[in-house]
Amino acid sequence: MNNVKKYSIGIDMGATSIKMGLMSKDWNILLRKTIPVEKYRLPDFFFKEVGEAVHAMLNEKNIKKDEFGGMGIGLPGCVDSVNGIVRDLTNMPYWHEVHISEKFEKFLQIPTRIDNDVNMMTIGEWRHGAGNECEDMICITLGTGVGGGLVLNGKMYRGVDLCAGEIGHIPLFYDGEQCNCGNRGCLERYVGNAAIVRRTQEKLILNPEKGTILVDLLSANNDLTPKLISEAAGQGDELSNEIFNETGKYIGSVLSGVVNLLNPERIVIGGGVAQAGELLFKPIREEVEKRAMPVAVAGLKIIPAKLGEDAGIYGAATYAIEHFLHKEF
Amino acid sequence: MNNVKKYSIGIDMGATSIKMGLMSKDWNILLRKTIPVEKYRLPDFFFKEVGEAVHAMLNEKNIKKDEFGGMGIGLPGCVDSVNGIVRDLTNMPYWHEVHISEKFEKFLQIPTRIDNDVNMMTIGEWRHGAGNECEDMICITLGTGVGGGLVLNGKMYRGVDLCAGEIGHIPLFYDGEQCNCGNRGCLERYVGNAAIVRRTQEKLILNPEKGTILVDLLSANNDLTPKLISEAAGQGDELSNEIFNETGKYIGSVLSGVVNLLNPERIVIGGGVAQAGELLFKPIREEVEKRAMPVAVAGLKIIPAKLGEDAGIYGAATYAIEHFLHKEF
Repeated sequence: MNNVKKYSIGIDMGATSIKMGLMSKDWNILLRKTIPVEKYRLPDFFFKEVGEAVHAMLNEKNIKKDEFGGMGIGLPGCVDSVNGIVRDLTNMPYWHEVHISEKFEKFLQIPTRIDNDVNMMTIGEWRHGAGNECEDMICITLGTGVGGGLVLNGKMYRGVDLCAGEIGHIPLFYDGEQCNCGNRGCLERYVGNAAIVRRTQEKLILNPEKGTILVDLLSANNDLTPKLISEAAGQGDELSNEIFNETGKYIGSVLSGVVNLLNPERIVIGGGVAQAGELLFKPIREEVEKRAMPVAVAGLKIIPAKLGEDAGIYGAATYAIEHFLHKEF
Repeated sequence: MNNVKKYSIGIDMGATSIKMGLMSKDWNILLRKTIPVEKYRLPDFFFKEVGEAVHAMLNEKNIKKDEFGGMGIGLPGCVDSVNGIVRDLTNMPYWHEVHISEKFEKFLQIPTRIDNDVNMMTIGEWRHGAGNECEDMICITLGTGVGGGLVLNGKMYRGVDLCAGEIGHIPLFYDGEQCNCGNRGCLERYVGNAAIVRRTQEKLILNPEKGTILVDLLSANNDLTPKLISEAAGQGDELSNEIFNETGKYIGSVLSGVVNLLNPERIVIGGGVAQAGELLFKPIREEVEKRAMPVAVAGLKIIPAKLGEDAGIYGAATYAIEHFLHKEF
């Protein structure tokens, strides 16, 4: 795919840290660096720390300027990937209309592409992970929020205002709960981290007679989290299994509509909640097979993401290389 | 757009007739022909009648072979547009695995592209109607069924098995009515022709005390149809207005999910039920604005289709020209 192989840097900015990776020409991570961030840090901190780290990485590996293809950055929020501007970041009040690409390119001579973190994860999984470079793929991340990225007709699809992919805000229930986004009954309100915990608490309260090892686990000072619930389910706990079954059915129901609409080849699912594995993937697949059109599910694969926490780094580096060297996406 | 302008022929095959149009180089319909069909006609009838009509049209206008760009055909069913094969047609039992393009090209020397009727309508509206050649457009047809076609990243999007666009089979209600497609609570079950009639009947039975002019209209031997209901609504009938309000809200709810997922620039809606005009478009727009993400609705237009019954002819002719002359879609 790359006629001119070059080094690149991928950056994944999260709520608590900036994860950086220097990529070899054949897509191995040669060096890593993690920079902690805090909610109220100014963007200037980001420019300074990241700029220094980039130069240190390139120096350490003795990479010449013409061997460096560029840098990609995934950010958690609303990003104008075309113009390289962060509109707003979730939960970081000082990030508003920040011209990232311009700053890195003008002042530090680092060719830079940015996009939201889920799109970067999507590119990473598509090119180097579970996506297998297929033509039509949907990538979903299940965690605090439920995000999505779309590869359609062999290209990243971002929509006219660059905000496509919000699978978590497709209505699951017509008259469901009010969501922060303005919609009602959004999928995220039922399968996001907080929702899984809340649904579990409801079942615990409503069925006190039901024996569940969750009560013991909670008594031992564990926090009630999707991870704890999935561990209990893995040990055969009925209530916990019900929660993951239901979660899978909810996701599968929304995905049946997405499959009927987009007829994708693959759906790749990652994020914390997806760590539950078959506990979650089995009911998702069953629900999609039951509900979506037979012709659309015949060739469909619904599989776990492969790159874990590195997906964003891979995607960001790939985006930069593809954009600057091949004029693609 | 067309460097080499050529004549073309567009064909729209429906349940009762084959509508043909000879297109000028600058996209006017020069000649029309309608051939009646019946459910149990064999495909050979189609090849003979259409083949003869094509040659008659080209002769009548004295169009030379090198001035003819090709023919497109939209068909109501499951169509392999890449290989030019009809898999199955809805309600026409003898149409199974029919190699249309091959037959027309080999035996009649007519370069031919086929696709399903909704995709052809989508291409027609996109290039010559309400779509304004925008990059990301969704075209919806509301009638017996609820169909959809997608233009994404400036290209027709068909999905990996060429069956994308089934907006009518996105779930509106999680635990809704069983649909023929296998899913539950599909939009089509609530806003297709039959569903609108059934919902109206339910309201008539449940609220006999409510004065409605529908009762008079039905007593005058009119059939209860979406058209009759929209006429009653236009005359201020409350129950009929409720039906269209509810229909619009149902469509708007599903579209809010589609808008959050695809962030399109335009949604173009046609088909018989869409003839109700603002009665339907107003609640659709209100529901989408209320439910979809503000950033995704800011630039969105939801507008009626423009080409009416000619959309399929325009789209089919355009598909052929684009494919054979410009190697596009």
